Amino acid sequence: MQKAAVIGAGYMGSAITFPLSDNGIEVNLWGTWLDDSLIESSLKGFHPKLKKPLPENVKLYYWRDIKAALGDTEIIFIGIASEGFVKVFELLLDNLDPDRTYYFFKLTKGLVEYEGKIMRATEAAFEMLRKKFNNEKGRNSSSSGKILWASVGGPVRALDLAFRTPSASMYGLSDTKIKDMLQDFSTDYYRIFPTDDLEGVEICSIFKNVYAMAAGICDGIFKKENEGTYFNIVAFLFNQAVQEIARIVEIAGRRKQTVFDLAGVGDLHVTSAAGRNRRYGELVGSGVDGETAFKKMYAEGEFGEGFVALKLGIPWLSDKYNVTENLMKEELPLLNTLNRIIFKKENPAFSVKTLAAQLGY
Amino acid sequence: MQKAAVIGAGYMGSAITFPLSDNGIEVNLWGTWLDDSLIESSLKGFHPKLKKPLPENVKLYYWRDIKAALGDTEIIFIGIASEGFVKVFELLLDNLDPDRTYYFFKLTKGLVEYEGKIMRATEAAFEMLRKKFNNEKGRNSSSSGKILWASVGGPVRALDLAFRTPSASMYGLSDTKIKDMLQDFSTDYYRIFPTDDLEGVEICSIFKNVYAMAAGICDGIFKKENEGTYFNIVAFLFNQAVQEIARIVEIAGRRKQTVFDLAGVGDLHVTSAAGRNRRYGELVGSGVDGETAFKKMYAEGEFGEGFVALKLGIPWLSDKYNVTENLMKEELPLLNTLNRIIFKKENPAFSVKTLAAQLGY
Repeated sequence: MQKAAVIGAGYMGSAITFPLSDNGIEVNLWGTWLDDSLIESSLKGFHPKLKKPLPENVKLYYWRDIKAALGDTEIIFIGIASEGFVKVFELLLDNLDPDRTYYFFKLTKGLVEYEGKIMRATEAAFEMLRKKFNNEKGRNSSSSGKILWASVGGPVRALDLAFRTPSASMYGLSDTKIKDMLQDFSTDYYRIFPTDDLEGVEICSIFKNVYAMAAGICDGIFKKENEGTYFNIVAFLFNQAVQEIARIVEIAGRRKQTVFDLAGVGDLHVTSAAGRNRRYGELVGSGVDGETAFKKMYAEGEFGEGFVALKLGIPWLSDKYNVTENLMKEELPLLNTLNRIIFKKENPAFSVKTLAAQLGY
Repeated sequence: MQKAAVIGAGYMGSAITFPLSDNGIEVNLWGTWLDDSLIESSLKGFHPKLKKPLPENVKLYYWRDIKAALGDTEIIFIGIASEGFVKVFELLLDNLDPDRTYYFFKLTKGLVEYEGKIMRATEAAFEMLRKKFNNEKGRNSSSSGKILWASVGGPVRALDLAFRTPSASMYGLSDTKIKDMLQDFSTDYYRIFPTDDLEGVEICSIFKNVYAMAAGICDGIFKKENEGTYFNIVAFLFNQAVQEIARIVEIAGRRKQTVFDLAGVGDLHVTSAAGRNRRYGELVGSGVDGETAFKKMYAEGEFGEGFVALKLGIPWLSDKYNVTENLMKEELPLLNTLNRIIFKKENPAFSVKTLAAQLGY
């Protein structure tokens, strides 16, 4: 029987156990030190975030039992929030067998900080792998073990997946060999679309959380103003977001087509329609300032990925791709506007209307 | 003072009078023979569809007064439903001065039937122009008058526009000269994005109404099943719709990029989120059969453009672009599924889940 370890017992880590165990895979779900109450409750038959029991054959592990959770599996799904990624990945590395081949599937979406530098989670992971195993290309050129990597994107909201609603995921693969595996994970309701544009998928996953806040902000503004309807501006900014993510992916030297597909258009759609980043945006649109809204949600156990991705994303674009403030104003004006609203306390209604008036004729 | 005539006093015709009159343009709004009650009510200070008064300086005309409505304007916006397009355009032609230049802005979205053939509204208009003025290229090569044409697309819901919510429109232009005019129509809240891909914009406008029904159908299914959440499947099919419209535009020899922009992604977004086609889809998803749902809405004065565009769109694709049933199944599977649900009474939940299970790995 195939085995898989899932790292992180929050929304996405727990949700991915549904298609995996429906495929007859023996799943070990491991919770971080922040997930103790989730594991405890799940052991009693109810996952508090997914609001339902996990599949019967999923085995649950507290964070101290990482060795047991990893067991002898080669397949590791990482489903933790970006803030915990580096710390958890380091712990993971301490418990891997350097002479074995592993297949990693990264569900985490966001940028991370590693040794004072902002980077994609996959970059940080490969840096850590290189250091740990003292090997220039991660472990790919080592004689014994190998790392195969997939960055998972696409429009998969954990709650829907856990209800087995048809969902589409885009897997950016480091190696075409992984393709042969995908049918072991997919089900009638969990469909997988592979691509070799791993970096493109990952950039989409970072920025869709940023831009999804725009939909929430618009709703917040218009609910507060309590007059008129606001579907046009949400669609206007949705399209603008797609164009800007495409521009960012282009700047990063990857394919725009990845953005005009499930990883971009698809994921931005679901993230704009429902979930934490949208809710965060609504708070801001209704007048709560950016930092306060983040803290408020954090206190309620909800991590605002979009807020953090915006905070890290702007210096990342500047440091890595030389995106100047001027270039941002001209070519990424919605990103610039979100920055002004969230970090410079600009009035949301004023900012959004000013932005709209500057675009087009 | 600039003058414009707007043909059709329904949702979009009436809504466009807001940015036009905010620009100081003298607007004559003409209602068709079906719009008498809209004109009557608007004259009393309340437009029943927009649920508010029209701008003060808009002059209202009943259908018999078309000559007066056209007056000596060169600028004509056509905002009627596709079903009335041919008849109204013929009436319009009878009242135009063949020796003058006209600028047409077609807000109508859909396919029309003209002399037994299905075609884009712009094609039908140019056929009619050619016949009327006995001139091979419409009037473009005539010595006196000229016709300049724009097909308008993009995410503009009439209700939002009438509330002056920021909105973005894409104008597909037959002639770059029209570009110089656009700033006379745009306002801070009505933004215009020109493109030379007139046909691409028009195809987007036809098919976004078709594919928007999918979002409604999903909602209808899941509301009826009353369990689970369905944002993933809506985003999945949204993305699938974008890919299929892009394929159709490619088959028609036009640019995919038009689809990955306001005319496609943007307009599909707003149409999927709100409005008649979405509502139509909800009825079907909840179990009302396709024809009955159309008739039910028609009886309430709401025209299901998506239903008609699907009905005409499939033979149009087949006749004009040789899209066979097999090609449709393979390359336009969502279109095929919509056809099966709406015209072949296939169970919506079964069809949607079967489709999802066939896409990807």
